Amino acid sequence: MKRVVTFGELMLRLSPPGQDRLFQQPKLRTFFGGSEANVAASLAHFGIRSDYVTRVPQNAVGDAAVAAMRAEGVGTRGMLRGGDRLGIYFVEGGADVRALRVVYDRAGSAFATLDPADFDWDGLLGGADWLHLSGITPALGDGPARAAQDAVEHARRSGVRVSVDLNYRPALWTGRDPRPVTRALVGGCDLLIGNPGAVRAMLGVGPDAGPDAESDDALRASAEAIAADLGCRAVALTRREVITAGEHGWSTALFDPQTSTLHRSRRWQVKVVDRVGGGDSFAAALLHATLAGRAPADALEFATAASALKLTIPGDFNRVTADEVDALLQRTA
Amino acid sequence: MKRVVTFGELMLRLSPPGQDRLFQQPKLRTFFGGSEANVAASLAHFGIRSDYVTRVPQNAVGDAAVAAMRAEGVGTRGMLRGGDRLGIYFVEGGADVRALRVVYDRAGSAFATLDPADFDWDGLLGGADWLHLSGITPALGDGPARAAQDAVEHARRSGVRVSVDLNYRPALWTGRDPRPVTRALVGGCDLLIGNPGAVRAMLGVGPDAGPDAESDDALRASAEAIAADLGCRAVALTRREVITAGEHGWSTALFDPQTSTLHRSRRWQVKVVDRVGGGDSFAAALLHATLAGRAPADALEFATAASALKLTIPGDFNRVTADEVDALLQRTA
Amino acid sequence: MKRVVTFGELMLRLSPPGQDRLFQQPKLRTFFGGSEANVAASLAHFGIRSDYVTRVPQNAVGDAAVAAMRAEGVGTRGMLRGGDRLGIYFVEGGADVRALRVVYDRAGSAFATLDPADFDWDGLLGGADWLHLSGITPALGDGPARAAQDAVEHARRSGVRVSVDLNYRPALWTGRDPRPVTRALVGGCDLLIGNPGAVRAMLGVGPDAGPDAESDDALRASAEAIAADLGCRAVALTRREVITAGEHGWSTALFDPQTSTLHRSRRWQVKVVDRVGGGDSFAAALLHATLAGRAPADALEFATAASALKLTIPGDFNRVTADEVDALLQRTA
Amino acid sequence: MKRVVTFGELMLRLSPPGQDRLFQQPKLRTFFGGSEANVAASLAHFGIRSDYVTRVPQNAVGDAAVAAMRAEGVGTRGMLRGGDRLGIYFVEGGADVRALRVVYDRAGSAFATLDPADFDWDGLLGGADWLHLSGITPALGDGPARAAQDAVEHARRSGVRVSVDLNYRPALWTGRDPRPVTRALVGGCDLLIGNPGAVRAMLGVGPDAGPDAESDDALRASAEAIAADLGCRAVALTRREVITAGEHGWSTALFDPQTSTLHRSRRWQVKVVDRVGGGDSFAAALLHATLAGRAPADALEFATAASALKLTIPGDFNRVTADEVDALLQRTA
Amino acid sequence: MKRVVTFGELMLRLSPPGQDRLFQQPKLRTFFGGSEANVAASLAHFGIRSDYVTRVPQNAVGDAAVAAMRAEGVGTRGMLRGGDRLGIYFVEGGADVRALRVVYDRAGSAFATLDPADFDWDGLLGGADWLHLSGITPALGDGPARAAQDAVEHARRSGVRVSVDLNYRPALWTGRDPRPVTRALVGGCDLLIGNPGAVRAMLGVGPDAGPDAESDDALRASAEAIAADLGCRAVALTRREVITAGEHGWSTALFDPQTSTLHRSRRWQVKVVDRVGGGDSFAAALLHATLAGRAPADALEFATAASALKLTIPGDFNRVTADEVDALLQRTA
Amino acid sequence: MKRVVTFGELMLRLSPPGQDRLFQQPKLRTFFGGSEANVAASLAHFGIRSDYVTRVPQNAVGDAAVAAMRAEGVGTRGMLRGGDRLGIYFVEGGADVRALRVVYDRAGSAFATLDPADFDWDGLLGGADWLHLSGITPALGDGPARAAQDAVEHARRSGVRVSVDLNYRPALWTGRDPRPVTRALVGGCDLLIGNPGAVRAMLGVGPDAGPDAESDDALRASAEAIAADLGCRAVALTRREVITAGEHGWSTALFDPQTSTLHRSRRWQVKVVDRVGGGDSFAAALLHATLAGRAPADALEFATAASALKLTIPGDFNRVTADEVDALLQRTA
Repeated sequence: MKRVVTFGELMLRLSPPGQDRLFQQPKLRTFFGGSEANVAASLAHFGIRSDYVTRVPQNAVGDAAVAAMRAEGVGTRGMLRGGDRLGIYFVEGGADVRALRVVYDRAGSAFATLDPADFDWDGLLGGADWLHLSGITPALGDGPARAAQDAVEHARRSGVRVSVDLNYRPALWTGRDPRPVTRALVGGCDLLIGNPGAVRAMLGVGPDAGPDAESDDALRASAEAIAADLGCRAVALTRREVITAGEHGWSTALFDPQTSTLHRSRRWQVKVVDRVGGGDSFAAALLHATLAGRAPADALEFATAASALKLTIPGDFNRVTADEVDALLQRTA
Repeated sequence: MKRVVTFGELMLRLSPPGQDRLFQQPKLRTFFGGSEANVAASLAHFGIRSDYVTRVPQNAVGDAAVAAMRAEGVGTRGMLRGGDRLGIYFVEGGADVRALRVVYDRAGSAFATLDPADFDWDGLLGGADWLHLSGITPALGDGPARAAQDAVEHARRSGVRVSVDLNYRPALWTGRDPRPVTRALVGGCDLLIGNPGAVRAMLGVGPDAGPDAESDDALRASAEAIAADLGCRAVALTRREVITAGEHGWSTALFDPQTSTLHRSRRWQVKVVDRVGGGDSFAAALLHATLAGRAPADALEFATAASALKLTIPGDFNRVTADEVDALLQRTA
Repeated sequence: MKRVVTFGELMLRLSPPGQDRLFQQPKLRTFFGGSEANVAASLAHFGIRSDYVTRVPQNAVGDAAVAAMRAEGVGTRGMLRGGDRLGIYFVEGGADVRALRVVYDRAGSAFATLDPADFDWDGLLGGADWLHLSGITPALGDGPARAAQDAVEHARRSGVRVSVDLNYRPALWTGRDPRPVTRALVGGCDLLIGNPGAVRAMLGVGPDAGPDAESDDALRASAEAIAADLGCRAVALTRREVITAGEHGWSTALFDPQTSTLHRSRRWQVKVVDRVGGGDSFAAALLHATLAGRAPADALEFATAASALKLTIPGDFNRVTADEVDALLQRTA
Repeated sequence: MKRVVTFGELMLRLSPPGQDRLFQQPKLRTFFGGSEANVAASLAHFGIRSDYVTRVPQNAVGDAAVAAMRAEGVGTRGMLRGGDRLGIYFVEGGADVRALRVVYDRAGSAFATLDPADFDWDGLLGGADWLHLSGITPALGDGPARAAQDAVEHARRSGVRVSVDLNYRPALWTGRDPRPVTRALVGGCDLLIGNPGAVRAMLGVGPDAGPDAESDDALRASAEAIAADLGCRAVALTRREVITAGEHGWSTALFDPQTSTLHRSRRWQVKVVDRVGGGDSFAAALLHATLAGRAPADALEFATAASALKLTIPGDFNRVTADEVDALLQRTA
Repeated sequence: MKRVVTFGELMLRLSPPGQDRLFQQPKLRTFFGGSEANVAASLAHFGIRSDYVTRVPQNAVGDAAVAAMRAEGVGTRGMLRGGDRLGIYFVEGGADVRALRVVYDRAGSAFATLDPADFDWDGLLGGADWLHLSGITPALGDGPARAAQDAVEHARRSGVRVSVDLNYRPALWTGRDPRPVTRALVGGCDLLIGNPGAVRAMLGVGPDAGPDAESDDALRASAEAIAADLGCRAVALTRREVITAGEHGWSTALFDPQTSTLHRSRRWQVKVVDRVGGGDSFAAALLHATLAGRAPADALEFATAASALKLTIPGDFNRVTADEVDALLQRTA
Repeated sequence: MKRVVTFGELMLRLSPPGQDRLFQQPKLRTFFGGSEANVAASLAHFGIRSDYVTRVPQNAVGDAAVAAMRAEGVGTRGMLRGGDRLGIYFVEGGADVRALRVVYDRAGSAFATLDPADFDWDGLLGGADWLHLSGITPALGDGPARAAQDAVEHARRSGVRVSVDLNYRPALWTGRDPRPVTRALVGGCDLLIGNPGAVRAMLGVGPDAGPDAESDDALRASAEAIAADLGCRAVALTRREVITAGEHGWSTALFDPQTSTLHRSRRWQVKVVDRVGGGDSFAAALLHATLAGRAPADALEFATAASALKLTIPGDFNRVTADEVDALLQRTA
């Protein structure tokens, strides 16, 4: 069985019931989520042995965070305990013309205040096949940035493959240039995931957004720039079209620098139950399909269908098996 | 007031809240349902006096099953008490590209282990106008098969009309040929309901599925074969198109062997709230409209609209009045 | 800050959870609502100082009614206490082909039995910029009709602008001619809101409904008739197309008698979460935009978009800010 | 199987969840209840054939009321349909030092406005063994009072035994003297149930309340006065001690005029889950035990234990079997 | 109508449903609370005009906080908007031998980071009769401490009476001596509330805890020391006995330095529904009774009974009227 | 870290909300539980490495069962997948005089139909310190009985200590003598847990129940007989007094055959939230305390307090830490 390690921040998500606005009723549903936790959870559902590395507080909230990951089948030995609080985000899902609304309350979190020296990457990555991170982590503080860089460097030294999902969140980079730290993290990775806008903003390469941003040529230009400039061995580009809060288009592309081939997936249009974690479910499924030896075009279709399924599932995690993804592909072939 | 008797298995349905996956929250909503119970409940809402014959255990689950049928206005004198358990099925409704998921746990049920001798068909069918069964019952065991055959034979002897809804469930027939027992049950019935695939598999007549399976000619061929070979006096053919878990097409046809007329209903495309019991609601409404003396084409439109409504109602039962069905037909005329 | 006063009946709304039929589960969600209360609540969310005048009983239901308005930020000094009961309405939202179902239980309410002499319009309207009423109030009894007329007359004397939303409810006018009392209320108002059918039925002017009822010419004819015959200074006409219980079209028009200009809004097609209060949210947003000095065409688009948003929000109140409405307009420009 | 008919008003009860105050959350739980409906439901759980006679509106609330009674196993043929509304009462259960709070909204109900001529007592009481009423009905209006008197007179003529539970509600008698109408209803009954205060207020006999009101002598004096003055063949006296909202004492006595024997039950002290319907459950259980031929002392213990159980069950109905009552008596012997 | 102003931090409280442990189900109930907010809410229920001064963020959480206070009838003009987050506390109520568990997540709150210069005490206290604060505020940071001191000084200059509830929370004072800042705040106040332990720890006066800590002599010694040393005009001492998580004893004393009288209340033993806010409800009720001119002994009994009632109400606020408190006193006299 | 392995059947528990009767609302809360699973979960909360061995079906119910154990921190490598169904039990908690009601539906479960050859006890027990079983397992069928015996024999050969909790369930032994198979399982164990009645019925030793059954002498006689006759190295005897459904007494004793000492715990009287799993929580805590090297008297007090805490926690698992147990002991010392 393959083993993947992911590293990043876990947060408590609080959402109102049904299609209510936040606090319209005195009731919140709890989820735990975070880009890399979502990847770990999805991989576990695919039958991959996945371990999640993070830092959560030593209190009832942190206990629940660990239990939530364990319940999904994720290895939690790397969930260090310490710090003052778990970051929180309030998510109101919206409905049709009413847009998703998110209120972040993540400052001062256990993860943001971590000490990179506390992470024993030798132990954590020992025997792993793959390390996955996101571009959020270096934005959260010097400690997380340093730890992410340590992890990547250790992985490279140990022959563990590395993927990074850019996950561009402009609000986290206010007043800072994301490019130096992100480029350092991404350089030489085995798989880079992002959308063309994020690529431009965080890596400083690829074409600017424009009317043709989604053309084969533009995607190829973006992907080739990443491969050439940053030495990434594969590039996946995603496209989310927010038609309404309740309906999204979703399609992706995968570029193989070795063969200079650009694969494009079919486009899904999905009635959205919960959009949070959609991109993460794509990353997880692409890792799974790659580790399972599927050919690039097949892997891309698998990953894109998996994330279409995610959009129908409450919470941040993609609780679907590989069989369910394949069944969807067959049903809709 | 007309009186209809239905006979079959009642089960406890357990479903997660909202659009959750099963056990995503530690909460299940309970429903009771079963093909023939659903028909009985729908008929009661139409103002028909309907009695339901089955067997449920003598415990709190069986008590609740009886209370559930009573609440709908169904006569429960024929709900015998005994056996070890009520069959259970877990239903996860799915959402858009995520398909419905059902886990059956029905082995060893009070119904499957019934003794046909316990059913006093003289008393149960006395004064009835109609007996309705489904093709599920004979698949559940020798006892149910025998009891169903007894009921049909008694009905014929007493001038009670008989309808059978094929309700083909391949999983129940694994390793057995459904044709002999189903043909015996169906032979000479007043109304047979099924889809062309079920007709082929359970009765061994009609064309195989193919690109033209839904053409007038194919439907007519199927219906004529049933009428000719099995002596059924009317044949209703249904078509469910599962566009997604949340959207279905639904249309039907009715064949009158006497006049060799094939009526086809309008096609409904419905945002599905709960698909379980859709076919049963069609059967119930067709019985109601027939007993109420509506002309075949009108009866078919009524029944098809009734089942379109069912798809919008949580649970297995079609809790709509005839007035509501007629109002829908008028609104959308 | 501008100040608007609204006057009308507040009711307790009881709705089943999710897409259930009424009483399918032993649970009801409570809302408070009423045409003019909805306007007041929406105005408060837009940052307008709004005061609501009504009469609710001196018991726990009345207390909750006051608290509900206060929670929205509405001034409740004008909510008189007395009478026997708060009117109730049961609302089952329906789903797709299953239509909305409403059961009214409003007879004998505190509002219907009010004594017009209890309302000190001098105090209640002092310092106000605008008074808003609906055509429901005069239908509820002689007391409410008298009080509404008093309010309008007082407003005119004091230079407070007046708007009336016709809100035609045929069931409330059974056996009575709505025209005399409505015309008296409406005459000379600053803004009249209605749809062409209501205009015809309650004011006796404008073209009858017909195939061209929504043409520019027909709308203009309706609006001009109101302006000419009743001296209203502006006329807004609304159009709700009930495609299904879950999907509505919504578009509006605004006529300016001074310039004889007819502005027509874009048409929204919305997946409906809760249709109750849609018209009221339009009225509120049009008042807000007018008081904020937006040009008629802009005000109309703002108001129409605001009510599109309302359709996505559970309950009678439009809990959106002006920023959210503007953001929607920008997103969909 | 014995058959009991009860006649009285059914209401919709709305209660907040858990120990909340009314409207603290926007959620209400629905129950249906009413003194005589509660008796009918409890009898059905005891296996008695019970029929309930009342009047409920022809709308979704009335439909739910009928379904609720049917679900309990009560015969609903006598539930006439008509009138404007079902009476409502809001019940906040209280907790410990916080007392129960009830808000009534029952004016103008379908029952209060019934026409006594609509009740065919010949048909309704045909084959019945017992008729049960309460002293609430005559307080609700002339129609109900007349209908109750008709029922009693018809029962006497037909040899159907009659019981009346006084159920003294001072608020319903404001400005009227309950004695004439109650005495007429009660005269010659087979079983009268009440507490000494109600006896004094509604029948005008028995000692006034005082320090010794619960002594054997006082109870005997009360019961003897009823027997002598009103010709009742048995008298049951109940005593509820409200220690807190969450803990009640409950004890009863039964007087047999023939033998002049006063039986007193054991005293139960119960942690209260729902106090509504406690007295009704006593009446039902006493009827059941009497019809089952239990000796007076046994019947009294059975009935008192049954009502102790009721206090632990949410809702107005006592959903317990006779076996459960007997098991409690054995467990605590 | 009297007017009271309170000043302090408002927090979001999150609690699991029923008697669950935190996160045992993925559901939390939301409340808003804080010592001084609780006092303001309770006063509003007593019919006092109360205004609450605090600082909450400009986001959906802050909006909900304002709406929550408004719903209780509290004036919210003094709820400034700004800062990053609202403090949160997770409360698991416990049950019997399982103790209450609280997880605080309040660092970096809008209130803790307030700028004292933003509070216009002239405007906020204009026309007020009373200012109430707690000893929590100075522990939250220099800004809050300064603002509290400003408020007190302004109140004294303007003839507004001042009360302080010590509310000793050792965890907030770790590493700091609470005495200097608390003594400055308290000096010369009109009413000081605390328990003997808090008095000793925060003011440095009164006897140490010991076996006789609750004797008249000890209480009197504590109170006299406060009066003498700090110049407080009245001292109320409270005693909570935590028998289990579900049962508390509650009793209080009031000392009048002028007459050197020590009044002691009756002792309540209450089944606890929600203990949070118990002390605050006492403070509010004592203020109310004092402002209403009740004699000290009566005021003390009123306040103690009010807080007994609070313990039966979910949430931090004491949603009871003065009539309800008086009714309890009468019922249990 | 110590490692404990437990082996037994896991079931799905379904319970109504709050204090409802089963199916009073159409809602059930789900729990997973089973005597040995409960022990494993409790041990995990105490920080022990615990692994659970069982067999659950390969479907969504089985997946949820595994996730539930994982969430508690239990090792699930030994949870084999196969068989048709997971056993179910419906639990209605009762309230005060209304007793707990349980409906079992466990026939034909994956566990009951296991093949003992599928369990690789070498692998499962490798490195374990302790094996825990209950007397339920051999009652469930020949396969489970054989597997339990295999496990015990393997443990003895490998130096793994063994404990058995008798858990006498007469209904499971109907028509069979529990003694031979239980004695074989228990013989030579390191710790036997039971109550005197179970000891007598399942092992055939010790005094019969009688008025002195709980005297030191009787307990000692029971324990000595077990030690002498079956060679057990320690014997724990438990006593549950069911005062009402909502209040239990709980006390225990521990006998050390080496020193012939009988330790008796303090007696707890607890307001019960959920009684299921109380005995299992005692077993788990006694194992933990023993493995942690606590002296017998201390271990017994710890274990008894732990199970007192369990009675306050919804569900079958004792979600408390050792710190919480110790804190309770200190609070109540």
